[in-house]
Amino acid sequence: MENSTSEPQPLLALVDALKRLPGVGVRTARRMAYHLLQHDLQAAQQLGQALTNAVERLQHCEQCNGFTEVPICATCLHPERDKTLLCIVETPADQNSIEATHGYTGLYYVLMGRLAPLEGTGPDELDFDRVLARAADGIVQEVILATNFTAEGETTAHYLSEALRTRGIKVTRLARGVPAGSEIEYVDAGTVAWALMERKPT
Amino acid sequence: MENSTSEPQPLLALVDALKRLPGVGVRTARRMAYHLLQHDLQAAQQLGQALTNAVERLQHCEQCNGFTEVPICATCLHPERDKTLLCIVETPADQNSIEATHGYTGLYYVLMGRLAPLEGTGPDELDFDRVLARAADGIVQEVILATNFTAEGETTAHYLSEALRTRGIKVTRLARGVPAGSEIEYVDAGTVAWALMERKPT
Ligand SMILES: [Zn+2]
Ligand SMILES: [Zn+2]
Repeated sequence: MENSTSEPQPLLALVDALKRLPGVGVRTARRMAYHLLQHDLQAAQQLGQALTNAVERLQHCEQCNGFTEVPICATCLHPERDKTLLCIVETPADQNSIEATHGYTGLYYVLMGRLAPLEGTGPDELDFDRVLARAADGIVQEVILATNFTAEGETTAHYLSEALRTRGIKVTRLARGVPAGSEIEYVDAGTVAWALMERKPT
Repeated sequence: MENSTSEPQPLLALVDALKRLPGVGVRTARRMAYHLLQHDLQAAQQLGQALTNAVERLQHCEQCNGFTEVPICATCLHPERDKTLLCIVETPADQNSIEATHGYTGLYYVLMGRLAPLEGTGPDELDFDRVLARAADGIVQEVILATNFTAEGETTAHYLSEALRTRGIKVTRLARGVPAGSEIEYVDAGTVAWALMERKPT
C-alpha cells in the first residue's frame, strides 16, 4: 500500500510560510499552525488580514524612511517640529522611545537596521547615501546619533559620524547615560531623557 | 507639542496579530514585523495568503479528526486500510511518524492535543466522547495508544485506556522502545517501527 500523506496542502503551505519568520524553525512553525487552526482560528484570520493590509498600505516615508501610509509621515510634516535637528535611529521602536521622553522636538531618520557586515548589511544595504543627502539639506544644523549602544550600533554611529563630519555637519551622540550593551527600546524614559540632554559632540 | 505616535495603524495591527502566535511576545512580534516589511515582503504576502487559505479550506475529518480539505480524509477513505485497527495520536505530525514506518495499515484518530489539566485541557476539551464513540463502532478490534511518552501523553493514554477497557475494547500501547521523555515526532522510524511491532496490552 502506498504511503498516504496525512497533511493537506493548505496546512503544509502554512507551515512553510511560518518557517520564513525570523527565528522560527519547522518545529515551531508546526506548533504555531496547529495552535492557530485548532484553538485560535480568529487569530489566524486576524494575522492573515493584518499581513495583507500592512503589505498593501505601508510605505517608507520619503523623508524619514519610517513606515507610513502616506508619502510623507505626520511627524515629518508636523509644523512645530524643529527642522534643524535630525535624530538617526535604528528602528521605529527606538523612535518611539525618544518620543516618549517628551524631550525632543526635532525630526528623525530611521535606518531600519544597523551595520552588520557578517550578515551582509553594509552602507549600501542601509542606503547611507540617502541618509547623508538628508542630513545635508542645508536646514539641518545637528545630527544626533541614537543608534543602539551595542557593538553593531556603535559601529554604525562611528561610520555615520565620520561620513557626516567629512561633509561639515555637526554630529552628536546620545550621552553614555544609557547603560552599555543595552538597547534603547528597553531603557526607561528618564535615562533616555538624561542621555538626550547630556549629548556630546562625537 | 503633543506627542505624535510614529507607528502607523497597519504596523501596530500586524504586531498585535503576531503577538497572538504561541511563544511570541511583543519584542519578537516587533522584530518579525520589521523583518517582513523591511526585508521580506514576499514572505509577508505568502504567509497572509497561506493563513487565509488554511482558514477557508481546512476542516476536521469527520472520522479521524485530522485536518482535511474534504469531509472525510483520503486516509480514512483508503480501501486497503485495515478498519479493525485504530491508532490514537496527539497531532498530525505524530501520524506522519507512524506512517513513515510503513509498518501500520490501520486507521487513525487525531486528538489534536493531550490532557493538560493545568492548562485547562480536560476530556471535554479533547472531545473524548467522540473518541470513545469512534472506537466503539463495532468494526474496530484494537485501539493502539500512540500518545507521546511524556507525562501528559502518558496521562492521556492512561485515561483513554481505562475508558476504552470499561467499554470492552482491546487497548494496546506502543512498546517502551521509544525512549522515555521523548516525543514520537522526533524518534527515528526504526525505533517507532519496533515499538509498533512490540506493542503490549495495557
Ligand atoms: Zn517621516
Ligand atoms: Zn480522516
